[in-house]
Amino acid sequence: MARIAILGATGYTALELLKILARHPQAEVVAATTRQDTNPHIREIHPSLTGLFDLRCTALTPEQAGKLCDIAFCCLPHTASMEAVPQLLDAGCRVVDLSADYRLKDPGVYETWYEHVHTDPTRLSTTVYGLPEIYADRIPSADLVANPGCYTSTSILALAPLLAAKLIEPTGIIIDAKSGISGAGRTPKLSNLYSECNESVTAYSIGMHRHTPEIEQVLTDIGGNSVQVAFTPHLMPMDRGIFCSIYPRVKGQQTQAQLLEVYRRFYAGQPFIRVVDHIPTTKDVSFTNFCDITVRFNRDQLVIFATLDNLIKGASGVAIQNMNLMLGLDQRMGMLTC
Amino acid sequence: MARIAILGATGYTALELLKILARHPQAEVVAATTRQDTNPHIREIHPSLTGLFDLRCTALTPEQAGKLCDIAFCCLPHTASMEAVPQLLDAGCRVVDLSADYRLKDPGVYETWYEHVHTDPTRLSTTVYGLPEIYADRIPSADLVANPGCYTSTSILALAPLLAAKLIEPTGIIIDAKSGISGAGRTPKLSNLYSECNESVTAYSIGMHRHTPEIEQVLTDIGGNSVQVAFTPHLMPMDRGIFCSIYPRVKGQQTQAQLLEVYRRFYAGQPFIRVVDHIPTTKDVSFTNFCDITVRFNRDQLVIFATLDNLIKGASGVAIQNMNLMLGLDQRMGMLTC
Amino acid sequence: MARIAILGATGYTALELLKILARHPQAEVVAATTRQDTNPHIREIHPSLTGLFDLRCTALTPEQAGKLCDIAFCCLPHTASMEAVPQLLDAGCRVVDLSADYRLKDPGVYETWYEHVHTDPTRLSTTVYGLPEIYADRIPSADLVANPGCYTSTSILALAPLLAAKLIEPTGIIIDAKSGISGAGRTPKLSNLYSECNESVTAYSIGMHRHTPEIEQVLTDIGGNSVQVAFTPHLMPMDRGIFCSIYPRVKGQQTQAQLLEVYRRFYAGQPFIRVVDHIPTTKDVSFTNFCDITVRFNRDQLVIFATLDNLIKGASGVAIQNMNLMLGLDQRMGMLTC
Amino acid sequence: MARIAILGATGYTALELLKILARHPQAEVVAATTRQDTNPHIREIHPSLTGLFDLRCTALTPEQAGKLCDIAFCCLPHTASMEAVPQLLDAGCRVVDLSADYRLKDPGVYETWYEHVHTDPTRLSTTVYGLPEIYADRIPSADLVANPGCYTSTSILALAPLLAAKLIEPTGIIIDAKSGISGAGRTPKLSNLYSECNESVTAYSIGMHRHTPEIEQVLTDIGGNSVQVAFTPHLMPMDRGIFCSIYPRVKGQQTQAQLLEVYRRFYAGQPFIRVVDHIPTTKDVSFTNFCDITVRFNRDQLVIFATLDNLIKGASGVAIQNMNLMLGLDQRMGMLTC
Repeated sequence: MARIAILGATGYTALELLKILARHPQAEVVAATTRQDTNPHIREIHPSLTGLFDLRCTALTPEQAGKLCDIAFCCLPHTASMEAVPQLLDAGCRVVDLSADYRLKDPGVYETWYEHVHTDPTRLSTTVYGLPEIYADRIPSADLVANPGCYTSTSILALAPLLAAKLIEPTGIIIDAKSGISGAGRTPKLSNLYSECNESVTAYSIGMHRHTPEIEQVLTDIGGNSVQVAFTPHLMPMDRGIFCSIYPRVKGQQTQAQLLEVYRRFYAGQPFIRVVDHIPTTKDVSFTNFCDITVRFNRDQLVIFATLDNLIKGASGVAIQNMNLMLGLDQRMGMLTC
Repeated sequence: MARIAILGATGYTALELLKILARHPQAEVVAATTRQDTNPHIREIHPSLTGLFDLRCTALTPEQAGKLCDIAFCCLPHTASMEAVPQLLDAGCRVVDLSADYRLKDPGVYETWYEHVHTDPTRLSTTVYGLPEIYADRIPSADLVANPGCYTSTSILALAPLLAAKLIEPTGIIIDAKSGISGAGRTPKLSNLYSECNESVTAYSIGMHRHTPEIEQVLTDIGGNSVQVAFTPHLMPMDRGIFCSIYPRVKGQQTQAQLLEVYRRFYAGQPFIRVVDHIPTTKDVSFTNFCDITVRFNRDQLVIFATLDNLIKGASGVAIQNMNLMLGLDQRMGMLTC
Repeated sequence: MARIAILGATGYTALELLKILARHPQAEVVAATTRQDTNPHIREIHPSLTGLFDLRCTALTPEQAGKLCDIAFCCLPHTASMEAVPQLLDAGCRVVDLSADYRLKDPGVYETWYEHVHTDPTRLSTTVYGLPEIYADRIPSADLVANPGCYTSTSILALAPLLAAKLIEPTGIIIDAKSGISGAGRTPKLSNLYSECNESVTAYSIGMHRHTPEIEQVLTDIGGNSVQVAFTPHLMPMDRGIFCSIYPRVKGQQTQAQLLEVYRRFYAGQPFIRVVDHIPTTKDVSFTNFCDITVRFNRDQLVIFATLDNLIKGASGVAIQNMNLMLGLDQRMGMLTC
Repeated sequence: MARIAILGATGYTALELLKILARHPQAEVVAATTRQDTNPHIREIHPSLTGLFDLRCTALTPEQAGKLCDIAFCCLPHTASMEAVPQLLDAGCRVVDLSADYRLKDPGVYETWYEHVHTDPTRLSTTVYGLPEIYADRIPSADLVANPGCYTSTSILALAPLLAAKLIEPTGIIIDAKSGISGAGRTPKLSNLYSECNESVTAYSIGMHRHTPEIEQVLTDIGGNSVQVAFTPHLMPMDRGIFCSIYPRVKGQQTQAQLLEVYRRFYAGQPFIRVVDHIPTTKDVSFTNFCDITVRFNRDQLVIFATLDNLIKGASGVAIQNMNLMLGLDQRMGMLTC
């Protein structure tokens, strides 16, 4: 039974981790931290967990938490995470970091996009990027796994097969991404109020969204050529789900059937990727760890559609996949298949 | 052309006032205030108003604002309003106060429910309660009108005809009220985040909601007997609308047709009250100044259903009705009829 | 491994059954029926099930289906179910009927509320009502279980402890019930279109809702006195969830703490009932088999709040609970705890 | 006072027309038709219109309706409209047709996309396309105006200035369009049920959506070169609003400021087009006749964002604009400015 600690237990990714861990047969949550010094019971922070855990959230230091557990999930904000992770590792536990702090290999790129000097730059090059469908060979032995961003996973999973097969141009890829509001987190801000978001669609962070360099870094690693995307995120009035409509430039002549076959071969044996014939919906994958993908030709413009649940396959579900791999367990353990 | 000032221009009630005033033929907005000292253009605060006003929000004092205008709409929070209103009146303008500060007649009741000593207690007894369907005779000459709460208007309009006719008992009235989220205002709080409210229904403030004494005060004034209600507010995942299901105890034998006739006589000639045969929906009245009401018997239990748009008929629409009456204009001026 | 058949596989309750059965370790779906004669794959009807079942829906007769399975879930509309159930039982399988056809004991009451003469009246008196928290002793040996209605389960679970303890009057109980739209089923009708339901709240079927006699029958059985309720259902703009606000008349003096203790004793050991101190939300129980309950006093009016997911604890989740009990398995098997 | 008839009064576009006409000072609704032979009152079909019209819907023939009115709004489905329009014109009234039947100039193109032989082909070439921002000179004298599609107006208004100025390539334009559900109409279908659409995003009709040839026809007329677009419509879980994210290829070097200036000049004096600096939201324009537009560069990829309310500026609002122009009235008459 692996001992688990969760750092930063108040947000939505921590909540989803706890829901999965509540039914995981090989993991036990031994600690959950918060900056609040009142030691609130976990059910006071997340009433939906009432009856599932007898657990108080405490203001443990990363060092203290790290000594109690085998694996720590770090759900802290970026910049806070790079302070905590070295202490966790020094304390002897292994870490799945759900922040953005260890996803980029180049500290200069981090500084450019996050406007913050990285304080643990030497670890970046050796951190494993936790997308199991791509890096399953490196995750089992990793001490530190950088859990991917939600837009990032969707975009990478949608584009990897065609870039690996060199069937599309690596540049000029348009990613029109639509996300539910939970991706904005649980910190109160005007822009994520119900009355602002409901019955409304808009775009944001054009040319500045921090998942851009992450998408390009991993796709460049997969495709072998420098990938460049125009990533445009949009907010949709719903809780969960990312739906990416991706417009690449196809090399040569391809049919929809040929391309779907490329995807099916690439993802053969992957339990959480469904290459489907129909156009998927975010609802099909809500509350699951599935990523559904298909392609269509709109006259001669290829469109790739990919969807996943941003809190599960886009965050906490894939984090559990990573944990399972690190523990030598079946990737699917504890996870719903639907 | 009446000169209008709006104090506290950043919230939803100010936005709705401005939308109506933009098309009002006899009113001109001359000032809008905010605590921000950057003099933001109104379109920076409310992008939907782009092109409708050439107006900057400034940090005018109430005294300064009061000197510029004929009528001031006070959209400040409670306790802030009771500081501003005396200054506005002293400056010579008339005031429609959208806060709760002048709605209750008894400063002791105010203190009990708002946990704050009223600093302008002598004015309470002479302030006119701005529900035009009940107090239309007093509003035209008033210098200060206390604009009603949204739950309050719905409940009073639903119950007034039967209490006035003494057809129901004045006590033990159960009001099960359902509200959209915009009633919670525009200040970021965990409880009004999209991801908390969406796909969720709950109740809140049981026995403590501050609209309770307001409902009882006005209904007691109408019915002549001390009215006592059990008011239970609920939050619904939608922007706008209040739907009240009210369970009173009927005196004697009545039929649905007889009671509807009582309502139709009571509200004869009222342009914004629709006594309907069908069960209304919040959507029927969204973005309008209508209040739709009907009654049903569930076996021998009477149920009254009443609905209005909390931001229009429940706040800014009725405020314009009050302004129109104060200016000697048709109540409907500037208002949509649908 | 129990062999399972699902009759009427196209609706939402069948979908939720299939999602739970996909992860159930002791049950295997061997047949799913539909009136469509094209033998569609289950993923064509429910794309979210892609990859989970290799199953085609066929036009099997009840007799044919009954011979293939150990337990049949009957997801047919009422009146269709009473045609199929006798054939299923004759074929030798056991049945969980999700329709209303076998819930009422008295065929006259059925005829009154459903406007249809019951064609299998003699079986009504012996059918077990499938609410495990009340009738767990009768379910294991039953051949036919009538799965409860969603409003019904919420209302009964909320009222049973107080009626059993005779702490409230059995008559004059006001149930103000709020439901998500999935309760209306998957058959296209004007009233369940997105554009009609969204951003709208209303009430319906006042005094005529068919869950009324079901609530009264079971609560009378529990409380020993003839229970009479005024049940008022409302529609909320959300997918899932029922939230009941129930206003009974308390006998004598009680405190909130005393009443919560009555609930906790009544439901001790029940894995799916959570008696909570906070006011629950539908979101807390969405996609779970939990029913959350609390009580409050609004001055001296008691209010009971109870919430569950209408498709899970209100339909398919409790159906699996029943199946587990019929098979001698742990009630929780296959079910998520969160 | 112009006499108005509405053919096909049961849908959402008819409802929105009626709401605007209820406050229009120069138009009076004299007839509304339906295929129902029970002569329902308009409030039975649209309860939100209670009290606004004393009007029954009748089964008048187009000839009968045409003789009663000066202007007929034809809200019939495509193919039904081409039967009615010639009869209306023969009866002597003028027509605004909200269907697709008279939008395309080439009957062959119509037949290809609508899979129906046009039965009134000769009138296509002379029908005026009712987009007032482009064809205001032709509308006043027209007897038949083809009211544009909702996606179409958004796309055309977003692209016209840059194509007219030849600043972008006419081909390879990617239009990623997001629509609220009311665009799907009021006819019950599985795909527009609340429980299917809510909490869900998807794409549909890839390469087959019938607004495609309409967009290309008008933009080709404006730009002088054959325009070709890849139009990808998506459904969003909300009632109203279209948000288009458009990715064209820019010719030469342009800045955001230069392009916004091109838009501002092109739309100078247009009361309903707002060229904004911020990224607009569908909520900013909901329930208004505004179309908000801006541009951004995502690195060197231009993105145009345009949004409008599909039922108002995308259908019934522009229809009233057309009516006003046909009657020699101010375009804005009867319309809300916000």
